[in-house]
Amino acid sequence: MADPRVTQVRDWLQGLQARIVEAIAAVDGTAFTVDRWQKAPGEPLQGRGTTMILEDGPVFERAGCGFSDVQGMKLPPSATQHRPQLVGAPFEAMGVSLVFHPRNPYVPTVHMNVRMLAALPAEGEPVFWFGGGMDLTPYYGFEEDAVHFHRACKSALEPHGSGLYPRFKAWCDDYFFLKHRAEQRGIGGIFFDDHSEGGFEASFAMQRSVGDAFLGAYLPIVERRMNIPHGERERDFQLYRRGRYVEFNLVWDRGTHFGLQSGGRTESILLSMPPQANWSYRREEAPGTPERELYDKFIVRREWV
Amino acid sequence: MADPRVTQVRDWLQGLQARIVEAIAAVDGTAFTVDRWQKAPGEPLQGRGTTMILEDGPVFERAGCGFSDVQGMKLPPSATQHRPQLVGAPFEAMGVSLVFHPRNPYVPTVHMNVRMLAALPAEGEPVFWFGGGMDLTPYYGFEEDAVHFHRACKSALEPHGSGLYPRFKAWCDDYFFLKHRAEQRGIGGIFFDDHSEGGFEASFAMQRSVGDAFLGAYLPIVERRMNIPHGERERDFQLYRRGRYVEFNLVWDRGTHFGLQSGGRTESILLSMPPQANWSYRREEAPGTPERELYDKFIVRREWV
Repeated sequence: MADPRVTQVRDWLQGLQARIVEAIAAVDGTAFTVDRWQKAPGEPLQGRGTTMILEDGPVFERAGCGFSDVQGMKLPPSATQHRPQLVGAPFEAMGVSLVFHPRNPYVPTVHMNVRMLAALPAEGEPVFWFGGGMDLTPYYGFEEDAVHFHRACKSALEPHGSGLYPRFKAWCDDYFFLKHRAEQRGIGGIFFDDHSEGGFEASFAMQRSVGDAFLGAYLPIVERRMNIPHGERERDFQLYRRGRYVEFNLVWDRGTHFGLQSGGRTESILLSMPPQANWSYRREEAPGTPERELYDKFIVRREWV
Repeated sequence: MADPRVTQVRDWLQGLQARIVEAIAAVDGTAFTVDRWQKAPGEPLQGRGTTMILEDGPVFERAGCGFSDVQGMKLPPSATQHRPQLVGAPFEAMGVSLVFHPRNPYVPTVHMNVRMLAALPAEGEPVFWFGGGMDLTPYYGFEEDAVHFHRACKSALEPHGSGLYPRFKAWCDDYFFLKHRAEQRGIGGIFFDDHSEGGFEASFAMQRSVGDAFLGAYLPIVERRMNIPHGERERDFQLYRRGRYVEFNLVWDRGTHFGLQSGGRTESILLSMPPQANWSYRREEAPGTPERELYDKFIVRREWV
């Protein structure tokens, strides 16, 4: 029989996906396409998912939000380096992952992910780990937005331990870093992995708090910026910067890179790709421009709250 | 004192780069930007290069052709698995690499690379290996073009051994394969690596033959297709398919992926990126369209000559 905690996490994740997609659809005035999929019998992992995507809307050019829930017969050694007794146990992995690419260059791209891995050994207690976070990638920087986003992250974590925000904020800066450009992906946020501190109840409560904080962290920024007039210059810069998003996800993001290399569902993994991205050789921003300011003041390691 | 064979390869590579760039500039009516660079003292690899690029031309939207020549003090073990006695020897690596992204969707994207690695031990004879090849990635398939390109590859290799074309053609199909899409990148061509058969003279002659065949393999196709009228439909498909080029290069291409991860010169490595690429969710081509035909008849493993 299924562990009731697995059901509890699944219910929360599916509810979260529904709430987020509903709010984004309302802002955009466009419904998401809902694509339910299931792994074919005989594949190494079994499972199912619901991929929701809005393409070519007036506010969002591409907004993807996926839920997936997969089961495997044997936990790989890499998943449980600290608990060798769980290697080979049946497991379940589920999560919600989203990337929203807005049309207006003044609205930042956002990423959020909440996931759970449960080892379900035949004998003994199940073990649960949580991971995820959220981070913001502006094209034009606004102090107010960066502070708002980080405050929302901090508030979500505060009730679960005052040390969590600084730890997860630094982890996010470390993770979302383009080593080949010596650049942060954006202004950061929070990131955590393999989290089981305090056991299931405490760590799931923390996870819920992060997921439930997402709309409050992002939507006010969208609403504030989505109608700012812009022209070709801002569009060009946005498209160029989106190239960095592609580079990060395909070269450095472990979930994307190893997902593609190990037979994950390609179209769901690549929900994170922008609708359009541009490259040009050695583009440089003139001093004193807002484009240059993005590099100098925003996509750097910085304390925002 | 420098080994005269190293000088000989360098001269040929620089001459090849100049010839190719001159021919492409003439077709486009636009000069390449020439960017000479040098590794800073103290970096683990020493060396220099010349990056040439044409952006936003009438025929080529982005055409990059780079020459680089780097020296290291110690050959890494991974480079000489079959000759452990050379590990730790000084080495020199040089090559020309190009990717041309045309504007007209009826003109294919092309990639060519010729490279040499020399181990130069203090005692004993230097050892030379050659690698490279060329491959074609059409957006709209033409049997005539695919046959022409493969014939040119075959003719270049024929004088150096009748077994080379079938071997290098199959190697190319194996290499330029997007496992996460179960798709070939394009119609293939030839690919080889660690080639030293017959010693320096024979393998360098083969390499020269490949590099020197490039313009004859590609330019007639450009000239045949560059003025075919096209509209938004063809442009959309081209931009979407360019997304596959980005995916291949960032996820699967060893040179690109490891180059970025190991501190290579980012802007030179990413010469291969298209000026613009698009993504959309589960795009499918209707039966009977030329777009569907590309998948069914062209970007599959197939004998063209």
